[in-house]
Amino acid sequence: MIYFDNAATTFHKPESVYKAVNKAIKELSANPGRSGHNLSLKAAETVYETRVKVANFFGAKSYENVVFTQNCTMSINMCMRGLLNRGEHFIISDLEHNSVLRTAVDIKRQGIEFDIFEFDYNVEKTLNNIKSLIKQNTKAIICTNGSNVFGIKLHIKEIGNLCKNNRIKFIVDAAQTAGVIDINMNSDNIDYLCIAPHKGLYSPMGLGILITDNLPLPYVTGGTGSSSALSEQPEYLPDKYESGTINVPAIAGLNAGIEFVEKNKNYIYQKEMNIINYIYNELSKMRNITLYNKPDLPVLSFNVDGFTADEVGNYLNENQVYVRTGLHCAPLAHKKFKTQGRGTVRVSVSYFNTMNEANEFINLIKKF
Amino acid sequence: MIYFDNAATTFHKPESVYKAVNKAIKELSANPGRSGHNLSLKAAETVYETRVKVANFFGAKSYENVVFTQNCTMSINMCMRGLLNRGEHFIISDLEHNSVLRTAVDIKRQGIEFDIFEFDYNVEKTLNNIKSLIKQNTKAIICTNGSNVFGIKLHIKEIGNLCKNNRIKFIVDAAQTAGVIDINMNSDNIDYLCIAPHKGLYSPMGLGILITDNLPLPYVTGGTGSSSALSEQPEYLPDKYESGTINVPAIAGLNAGIEFVEKNKNYIYQKEMNIINYIYNELSKMRNITLYNKPDLPVLSFNVDGFTADEVGNYLNENQVYVRTGLHCAPLAHKKFKTQGRGTVRVSVSYFNTMNEANEFINLIKKF
Repeated sequence: MIYFDNAATTFHKPESVYKAVNKAIKELSANPGRSGHNLSLKAAETVYETRVKVANFFGAKSYENVVFTQNCTMSINMCMRGLLNRGEHFIISDLEHNSVLRTAVDIKRQGIEFDIFEFDYNVEKTLNNIKSLIKQNTKAIICTNGSNVFGIKLHIKEIGNLCKNNRIKFIVDAAQTAGVIDINMNSDNIDYLCIAPHKGLYSPMGLGILITDNLPLPYVTGGTGSSSALSEQPEYLPDKYESGTINVPAIAGLNAGIEFVEKNKNYIYQKEMNIINYIYNELSKMRNITLYNKPDLPVLSFNVDGFTADEVGNYLNENQVYVRTGLHCAPLAHKKFKTQGRGTVRVSVSYFNTMNEANEFINLIKKF
Repeated sequence: MIYFDNAATTFHKPESVYKAVNKAIKELSANPGRSGHNLSLKAAETVYETRVKVANFFGAKSYENVVFTQNCTMSINMCMRGLLNRGEHFIISDLEHNSVLRTAVDIKRQGIEFDIFEFDYNVEKTLNNIKSLIKQNTKAIICTNGSNVFGIKLHIKEIGNLCKNNRIKFIVDAAQTAGVIDINMNSDNIDYLCIAPHKGLYSPMGLGILITDNLPLPYVTGGTGSSSALSEQPEYLPDKYESGTINVPAIAGLNAGIEFVEKNKNYIYQKEMNIINYIYNELSKMRNITLYNKPDLPVLSFNVDGFTADEVGNYLNENQVYVRTGLHCAPLAHKKFKTQGRGTVRVSVSYFNTMNEANEFINLIKKF
């Protein structure tokens, strides 16, 4: 079996993650921050320790800014809906996932306007494209750190700088990049960072992270275990954004996952890019294969001329090779590369893939 | 170790739940509904199977109405914020948890008014209290099925009937009761049911359920894996309410948890009430103990005269008995029983507690 669908979620996790989750379910199934007894405190300790690790890893101002959510989509919703008000304007890229695009379209009904900037490999052109859209009432730029379809890396640092100079808030969707490439909120001038830890941080599904540097409105209200007598949401972080019970087992898994990534930081991206570049180069030598761009991230899209993406995917699936085919929840990106009709075959690799798997994959495509 | 904090989360889960979660993390870590390959389909199958079980268990109209959320608080937020609009009115009980109360207070700022009805053990009095608050623009009644502090069971069926006769939507917060007592959306006339499966359904933390019988606005938008080319949220259930990656391991755990509860349906409540009633009776024989009400659910609150709740809790904690003390995220309920100052010591039991543990607990309180 070859799993090349890691951009959806990483299938193989480090042994330490399995162990941490298993242990947490058996030993930490007490509600953190709710009670004062030892078991609850033990769960709270694990949560605190993980917050600190996440904060350090991404250069957050404080561990208190690390908020645990349901998933990266929820983090994005909390940012966009909590920050933006009627009459304000924001800008998104033309490579956004539906998590940003659908939310942008939805809040437009509330009188919040947005424009879409054109990404260009030339950073100056990209910045100029953004500048031409900035208006008096532009409050935020929301931008993916990397395309989930084409593996394009956006110029986050430069866009962050532009935001800073224009006093615009910068929200980054790091679903595809957190754990894969370096992200530092401080040096990249990121105000809000949205993370899908079940991808590049090798955690289980069911957890998202929002690192907030500034306070939008709470988007979800409820019990926080703190200021329990108050009928209003507490104002302090992270409680303001963490209503209801959080996912302790997944947080324990994240703790182990981030440790694994930290330990292998210098190898992960290198190893993944070696594999994806090899696949790219081999595919580019074949006739009847359409490639769209040389990827900056371990994700690439291609098509086999004369076949639908699904036909290629079905063939691979029959041979126990698992990729994603069709449309990838990013209509703007598909439009940009004129693949909105047929979709693409997407290959996405993780640290746990091997060159042998890449070779097997290439041989299968050759046979096809 | 005696764990009596099951109203916060059940600590002991059935072996089958541990196994299911463990298996899911190792074998089902593929994103359901995103890709067409075998692993993704296997994950999607588990999710589908669990939806069907949940729908059957709670008498939902269709498995498609079963939406997986982050937690019960999120389910409540999605209902209240998705259903109610400016100029409308709703009614809540005076036993609500902060998940309902804080959300009510928060949406009041958007011009959505609410009133609080007084619960009375006499069902006719309760219904009259509600009736006196119903206005022309009353759109919903939101009501807990059971107090998380005092173990009081509310008259859901009768309130549901009142809602039906007045064409008012009925939202039930079943955080404390789902899996403990019978709930049937059909015969109880419940339109929206909010569930915390990590409590009475013995699932891991990190999952909530919203069973919706009718469509409010989506509250969170983003990728659903479906209608991928659409820049608007799809209109069909459950996708409309499930943006971003869902918690497959916890859903697999819920699948096993609900199976366990179904198999033991006739014993769980009985066993739990035997233990809690025994504790209640023994406490009521002691001097210097304040009890507030004979519980209908396996949750009771008490105080030891002359001591704070925390002092009692610390003593118990030192003896490896884990209860929750202080305020329990339900300021209205505390006010009703005049415990808003000192809080209470809360004992909450699950199927995995025993009479021996109850005896040990009683002996410890006697010594104290």
